[in-house]
Amino acid sequence: MSGCPYFEKKLFKNKPPKTEEDEDASQAGVNRATKGGIVYGDYLQLNKILSAQVLQSELKANKIHDEHLFIVTHQAYELWFKQILHELDSVREIFISGHVRDERNMLKVNTRTHRIVMIFRLLVDQFAVLETMTALDFFDFREYLSPASGFQSLQFRLLENKIGVPDNLRVPYNRRHYRDNFKGHDSEMLLTTEQEPTLLKLVEEWLERTPGLEVDGFNFWQRLEINIFDGLNQEKEKIEKMPDSEEKEELMAELVKQRELFTSLFDEKRHDHLVSKGERRLSYKALQGALMIYFYREEPRFQVPFQLLTSLMDIDTLMTKWRYNHVCMVHRMIGSKAGTGGSSGYHYLRSTVSDRYKVFVDLFNLATFLVPRHWVPKLNPNVHTFLYTAECCDSSYCSSDDSD
Amino acid sequence: MSGCPYFEKKLFKNKPPKTEEDEDASQAGVNRATKGGIVYGDYLQLNKILSAQVLQSELKANKIHDEHLFIVTHQAYELWFKQILHELDSVREIFISGHVRDERNMLKVNTRTHRIVMIFRLLVDQFAVLETMTALDFFDFREYLSPASGFQSLQFRLLENKIGVPDNLRVPYNRRHYRDNFKGHDSEMLLTTEQEPTLLKLVEEWLERTPGLEVDGFNFWQRLEINIFDGLNQEKEKIEKMPDSEEKEELMAELVKQRELFTSLFDEKRHDHLVSKGERRLSYKALQGALMIYFYREEPRFQVPFQLLTSLMDIDTLMTKWRYNHVCMVHRMIGSKAGTGGSSGYHYLRSTVSDRYKVFVDLFNLATFLVPRHWVPKLNPNVHTFLYTAECCDSSYCSSDDSD
Amino acid sequence: MSGCPYFEKKLFKNKPPKTEEDEDASQAGVNRATKGGIVYGDYLQLNKILSAQVLQSELKANKIHDEHLFIVTHQAYELWFKQILHELDSVREIFISGHVRDERNMLKVNTRTHRIVMIFRLLVDQFAVLETMTALDFFDFREYLSPASGFQSLQFRLLENKIGVPDNLRVPYNRRHYRDNFKGHDSEMLLTTEQEPTLLKLVEEWLERTPGLEVDGFNFWQRLEINIFDGLNQEKEKIEKMPDSEEKEELMAELVKQRELFTSLFDEKRHDHLVSKGERRLSYKALQGALMIYFYREEPRFQVPFQLLTSLMDIDTLMTKWRYNHVCMVHRMIGSKAGTGGSSGYHYLRSTVSDRYKVFVDLFNLATFLVPRHWVPKLNPNVHTFLYTAECCDSSYCSSDDSD
Amino acid sequence: MSGCPYFEKKLFKNKPPKTEEDEDASQAGVNRATKGGIVYGDYLQLNKILSAQVLQSELKANKIHDEHLFIVTHQAYELWFKQILHELDSVREIFISGHVRDERNMLKVNTRTHRIVMIFRLLVDQFAVLETMTALDFFDFREYLSPASGFQSLQFRLLENKIGVPDNLRVPYNRRHYRDNFKGHDSEMLLTTEQEPTLLKLVEEWLERTPGLEVDGFNFWQRLEINIFDGLNQEKEKIEKMPDSEEKEELMAELVKQRELFTSLFDEKRHDHLVSKGERRLSYKALQGALMIYFYREEPRFQVPFQLLTSLMDIDTLMTKWRYNHVCMVHRMIGSKAGTGGSSGYHYLRSTVSDRYKVFVDLFNLATFLVPRHWVPKLNPNVHTFLYTAECCDSSYCSSDDSD
Repeated sequence: MSGCPYFEKKLFKNKPPKTEEDEDASQAGVNRATKGGIVYGDYLQLNKILSAQVLQSELKANKIHDEHLFIVTHQAYELWFKQILHELDSVREIFISGHVRDERNMLKVNTRTHRIVMIFRLLVDQFAVLETMTALDFFDFREYLSPASGFQSLQFRLLENKIGVPDNLRVPYNRRHYRDNFKGHDSEMLLTTEQEPTLLKLVEEWLERTPGLEVDGFNFWQRLEINIFDGLNQEKEKIEKMPDSEEKEELMAELVKQRELFTSLFDEKRHDHLVSKGERRLSYKALQGALMIYFYREEPRFQVPFQLLTSLMDIDTLMTKWRYNHVCMVHRMIGSKAGTGGSSGYHYLRSTVSDRYKVFVDLFNLATFLVPRHWVPKLNPNVHTFLYTAECCDSSYCSSDDSD
Repeated sequence: MSGCPYFEKKLFKNKPPKTEEDEDASQAGVNRATKGGIVYGDYLQLNKILSAQVLQSELKANKIHDEHLFIVTHQAYELWFKQILHELDSVREIFISGHVRDERNMLKVNTRTHRIVMIFRLLVDQFAVLETMTALDFFDFREYLSPASGFQSLQFRLLENKIGVPDNLRVPYNRRHYRDNFKGHDSEMLLTTEQEPTLLKLVEEWLERTPGLEVDGFNFWQRLEINIFDGLNQEKEKIEKMPDSEEKEELMAELVKQRELFTSLFDEKRHDHLVSKGERRLSYKALQGALMIYFYREEPRFQVPFQLLTSLMDIDTLMTKWRYNHVCMVHRMIGSKAGTGGSSGYHYLRSTVSDRYKVFVDLFNLATFLVPRHWVPKLNPNVHTFLYTAECCDSSYCSSDDSD
Repeated sequence: MSGCPYFEKKLFKNKPPKTEEDEDASQAGVNRATKGGIVYGDYLQLNKILSAQVLQSELKANKIHDEHLFIVTHQAYELWFKQILHELDSVREIFISGHVRDERNMLKVNTRTHRIVMIFRLLVDQFAVLETMTALDFFDFREYLSPASGFQSLQFRLLENKIGVPDNLRVPYNRRHYRDNFKGHDSEMLLTTEQEPTLLKLVEEWLERTPGLEVDGFNFWQRLEINIFDGLNQEKEKIEKMPDSEEKEELMAELVKQRELFTSLFDEKRHDHLVSKGERRLSYKALQGALMIYFYREEPRFQVPFQLLTSLMDIDTLMTKWRYNHVCMVHRMIGSKAGTGGSSGYHYLRSTVSDRYKVFVDLFNLATFLVPRHWVPKLNPNVHTFLYTAECCDSSYCSSDDSD
Repeated sequence: MSGCPYFEKKLFKNKPPKTEEDEDASQAGVNRATKGGIVYGDYLQLNKILSAQVLQSELKANKIHDEHLFIVTHQAYELWFKQILHELDSVREIFISGHVRDERNMLKVNTRTHRIVMIFRLLVDQFAVLETMTALDFFDFREYLSPASGFQSLQFRLLENKIGVPDNLRVPYNRRHYRDNFKGHDSEMLLTTEQEPTLLKLVEEWLERTPGLEVDGFNFWQRLEINIFDGLNQEKEKIEKMPDSEEKEELMAELVKQRELFTSLFDEKRHDHLVSKGERRLSYKALQGALMIYFYREEPRFQVPFQLLTSLMDIDTLMTKWRYNHVCMVHRMIGSKAGTGGSSGYHYLRSTVSDRYKVFVDLFNLATFLVPRHWVPKLNPNVHTFLYTAECCDSSYCSSDDSD
C-alpha cells in the first residue's frame, strides 16, 4: 500500500527463545533482513499477480478494452475466496482439534468468523465495479471466453462444501452434477470436502455440548417445556374469564395455534422428519443448545457464543446477497433468456438464491419459537459475576504459546 | 417499511406479571390494540416527519428543486444523531449506575457501542447522496439559508461532549466559543454535558478497576516492567556478542531508543505531563488496564472488554472520517476561500480533523508499546476454562428483570 | 450538519430582477435575514423531527430500549422515500410537460434519476443498522406494534405506482388487495397514481420518438432486420462449407436457434402477446428505440439517453436488492413460519423479489438481442462532430430561466 | 465467479471480416474453443494468483495466521491499481491521440473515468477488512517484513504521476526523494511518467479548446467580466439608496470584498503567481473553459464535459479519502510515535492528506467564483435543440470501427 511505513525494522523478535539451532536460523534471517531484506514487490510476488491478465480478445487479435476489468474483478474475487478459505479452515481446525474447549480460542473463532463476514460484505459491494461494464461492452468479447464458466470456480465450491452446502440440496444445472465441471485433483478435493466435517457439523457438535442441556443437571429443555405450557395454560385461563366477544374468540384461536407450534418444537420425531427433508439442518440437541444461547445470551458465559451464532447468520445472509447480486448482474449482462439452448443460466442462478443454500437456516427459524422473558427458566444469579482470573503463573511449565 | 409483516398480533405479553392494577392498565392496552390498535403512519408520526420540509427558496418565491435534498439529508443526519445519543446515554447509564459490575450488562454495552459504530458507518456513506448536488445547484439557494449554520447543530455538540471532546481542545471558529452559537435551554444542556461524566471518563474508571492491576495482587504493571527490561537486557547481551559491524551499531542504537521508549512508559510524571497537554486523555492507571486487556485479550474474562476497546477506536475513527468527508464536501460546495470575510469555513473544518478530536487517542497510541508475547507476564492456565454456570434458580426471589 | 459553514450571508441574490412589487417582497426577506434570519434547528424543523419518537412499549409502561432504533430506522426510510418521490415527480413532470424536448433538460432528468439511484444504494445499506437488533430484542416489543405494518407505508406504494409497478402484477398478501390497507385520502392518492402516467409510460413515449426510427427516414428497424438476416445467412454459408463433423452439426443447430430468436424479435404479434402476459412492458416501437440507443450509444446524440437507460436499470436492480435485503432481515427477525395463522409474511415478501416487480425488465432482456458491431446499420460520420454552439444572445428576449 | 454462465458458446464473432489470413487464424481459434477451449482457472491464471501468498513468518518457522490477510489485502489493492492504470492510460491515450475531438469518444472517456471512481470507492471501503486485524495481531509478524514498505508500491506512484501529482509538491519522507525507493527499470518508468503528459495536462489542453472562449468569437471571458462588474455596480447603487444603518454598512463592506474577489479572478498575473506556488494547477485559459462548462452545463454540448469534471473531482476526493483511511489504519496499527527513530510514518502520511495532493484543486475552488444565473452571458436559444443526426451511411467507405 502506498507509503505504508508498516514494515519498520524491528529490534526484538516475537518468538520465544528456542534451541540453539533455531536461534541460528532466526539470527540468519535477521542478518539477511538487515543486509537486504525483502522488498514490497517481492514480498507480494507482484511479478505473478500483475502478469496474470491475459486478454483472450487480444490473443485473437481483437483486443477489447473491458476484458481487462472482467479478468481483474474475477481475480480479486478468487483472492478473497482464498482468504475466506484460510479463515474457514483455521476456524474448523480449532473446532476439530478440540481447542475450542479452551475458551481462550473463542476469541479467535469469533474474530475470524467476523472477518469472513467483512470480506463477504466487500464482495457484495464489489459488483458495483463490474456493473460499470454494460451488456454491450461484454458482448464484444464474450465469445472468446467459451467454454470457461464461473461454474468452474473450484474455490467457491470448496467454500460452499466446507461451510455445509450439502450435495443433495444443490440445484442441478442442465442436469449435470456440480462436480462434473472439475476433474483430476480438483474433483478429488471437492469430494474430500464433502466428506470432511463441515463448519455446520462442527458447530452442531459444539452446540450439543452447551452446558445446561444435561438431563441430569440443569436440564434446560425439560424446564423450558414445563414453563411454556404453564404459561400457555395461564393465558388460557385468563382468556376464558373474558366475557364472550369476537376478540375472545380470536385470542382463543391464536392460543390453539401457539400450542400447536410449541408442541411441534418439543416433538423430536417431527424434527427428524424436517431434517430428512432438508428443512432443518441441526440435530435436535444442537437446536436446544442454540435456543439456550439465545435465551441466556447476556450471561458472561454465553455472550461470545451468541456473537458467533450472529456471525454465522451474517455469513448465510451475505452469501445469499452475493448470489442475488450475481443474479442481478447476469440478468443485466446476458438477459434472462438462454440465447443458445440449454436452460438459462439466469434462471439457474436465480434458483440458488434459496433457503436450500442457507446452511444455518435453523438459527433464523428459531425466531419463531421465542417466548416472553419470564417464561425462561432462571439461572442462579451468583454465577453472573466473573471469578477473579488473574493469577500469576510466570514459571517455565506454563506455556502461553499461541499455536495456530 | 414496505410490506413488513413485523407487527403481527401477538398473543402473549412480555411483561412479567405485576400487581392487579398494572394488569388492568396493560389489559386495557391490549383491548385498544385489538379493537383498533395503531397504524403504521401514526406509529411513526409521519404527519410530523413528512411535513417538516419547508423550502426557504419557496417561501422567497423562487423554489429551487435541490433545497429539498439539502433539508432531507440534514434531517436524516439529525434523526441518526438522536439515535446515537439514545445509545450513548444508555451505555453511560450502565456505567454510571454501576450495573456494569454485573457482567451480564457487558453484552448490552458492547452491542450498543457497536450499533453506534454501524450508524456512523452509514453516516459516512450518506455524503454520497448529498454529493449528487453540485456547487452550482447549491449556489442557487444558499443565500436564503443565512445565517443558519451547521455550527448550530445541538445534537452533534451534545454527542461530542458526551463522548468526551473537551472544551479546551476545541478549535475556535472565528474566535467564538462553540457554545455562543446556542442560547437558553440549549446552552444549558451543553454546559450540563460538559460537567456530566463523559463516556471517556466512565471507561477510564472502568479500566482502572481491571482485575490484575492490584499492587497487592497480580500487580501486572510491575511484573510487566520487570519483564520488559529483562528482555531488553537479554537483547543487549546478544548484540554485544556480535562481531563489530555496521549492523551491530544499528541494532545497538535502536536498542537505546527502545529503552528510552519503555522508560517513558513507566514514568508516571511524564504521563501526567502529556495529559496536561491534552496528548493523553486516560489516567495512568486506566492506561495500565487498557494495556492489560490488550495483552490478555484471549482470556475469557477479557474477550468482551477487548471488543469494547476496539469499538471505541472504531467510533473515533468513524467520527474523524465523518469530519473528513464533511470537509471534502464543503470544499466541493463552496471552495476553500471564505467568500465574504471571516476565516474560511473550509479551513476551520479541516483543522477539526485532528487527533485533538480523537477522544480515545490513547488506545491507538498503545500500539507503540507492544512487546513480544513471551515478555507478557503469564496467567495461571487453570483460569482459562469457564466454570459451569447453569444452575437452576427458578424461585421467586431470583429477579431476572432486565431493566433498561 | 456539524460545523457546516454553508449558510454564509450572501450579498447578491440569484433571482433575475422582477417587477417592483416582487423586488419589495424579496428585499423584505433579505432584511429579515440580516436582522435575525433563520436558525439551523428552525430551518430543519427539528422540533417536529426529534419529537416524533414515541415508544409504544413506554406507553405500555414497559419501555424497551431497542424500539427507539426501530422507529428511527423506519422514519429515516420514510424521509428518503419522500426525497425519492420529490425527484421522481420532477422527472415525470419534465417528461409530461414536454420540456424534455428541450435537450437542456436531459441533464436534470439524468442527474435526478441518478440521485434516486444513490439514495436507493444508501437504503440498501441501511439495513445493516437495523440488523444490530436481534430477533430477541425485537420480540420484546413487537406485540405492542400490532396491527401496524409496513404494508401500510403509503409512500412506498406511491413510489411503486409512479415508477410503474402495475396493479395486476402485484402479489396479493392474504388474498387482500394492496389498497385495502389504506383508506380515505390515502386510498384515493394511490388510485390516482395508478391512473396517472407512470415513469415507465413516459419513458416509453420518449423512446418511441427516438430519431432514426421513422419509416420514411433512416428506418432503423428495417435496416437492422435486413442486416441481421444477411449476417445469419453468411454464417450459414460459412458453416455449410465446413467438412462434416460434430462441430459443424453443433454450429448449425445453434444457427437455427439464433434464427428463431431473431425471427421472434421482429414479430410484433409475439411482442404484443408477451406484453399481455406482463413479460414485456414496453411498446414495440419503444423497444426499437431502446435498442437503437444501445447500438448508437457513442453518438453524441445518444450518450445522455444511454446513461438514462442505465440509471433506470440501476433503479430496478436496487429496488429488488432492497426488497431482498428486507426479506433477509424479516427472516432473521421473525423466522420463516407464520406464527399465528395467515400466510407467512416472509414467504409473501420473498415472492415480491421477482421479475414481475422489475418495471424496466425489457431493458435487461434486450441483452439477449445483441449483435456484432458490423451488423449494425451505419450512420453518416458527418454527424459525429458537434456543431459550434456558443452564439451570443445577451438581449432581453432571451430567457434563460430555469423553471423547475 | 461462481456459477456464472457468462461464457456461453457463441455462434457469431464480433470482428468485421478481415483478410483471408486473419479469417483462418480466427477460425482456428473457434475450432480450438469448440474442441477444448479455455477453462475458468486457466483463463484467470489462478495458478499464479493463488500461489503468490508466501508468509514470511512461515519461512521463519513462526507462522502467523494473520499475515495471510495482510498479503491478500495488499495484492487486491495492487490488482485494482493495475485496473485503474489500465483505464487511466486508455483515457490519456484518447486525449493524446486527438480522438477526443471526435465527440463519440467522450462516452468512453466518461465511462472509464467513472469506473476509476467506482474502483476507488471500493478501495476506500476495503480498509474495513484489514481493520479486522488488530495492532497486536500485526505486531506478531511485522518484524519479518522489514524493510519492505508500502512506499515501494510502484503502481501507486505511477498512478499519482499519471494523474498529475507533481514532484515538487510531494512531501518528502525522511528527507528522501520518493524515487529513491525504486531502482533500475522501475525508477526509469517513474521518471518517464513524470515527463509524459499527465491527465491534468491533457484535461487542461482540452479545456483550453472549449468552444466559446475565442476572443474573436463568443469571447466568454470578456462578456463574463463585463456582466459581473455591471452586476456589482447595480448592487452598489441599490445599497447606496438604503437609509443609513448597520446593515447598510455590512452590505457595503461585503460588496467591497466581492469586488476584490472578482477583480482577482480576472487578474492573469495573480493567477500565474498562484500557479507558481502550486496553489493553482490549471492554465488561465483552461480555468476559463472549466468555468464556462460549469455555467453552461445544461447545454447539450456541455452535459458530458460537465460530468467529466465532476468525475475528476470525485477521483481527487476519493484519493484523499483513501489516503485518510490509510492514515487512520496506520494510527491504529502502529500508533503515532515513530518507535525506532526517523520521522513517524504516521505523521508523514498525515501530511499527504493535503490539498497539495489534490490534482484538480482548481475545479473545487471555482465554487468561490459562482455568480447569479442572470449574470451569465446568454447563448442563442436556437442551439439548444439537437440537429437530426441519423443519416444512413451503410456504404463501404464508412468505417465504424471502434479501435481501442
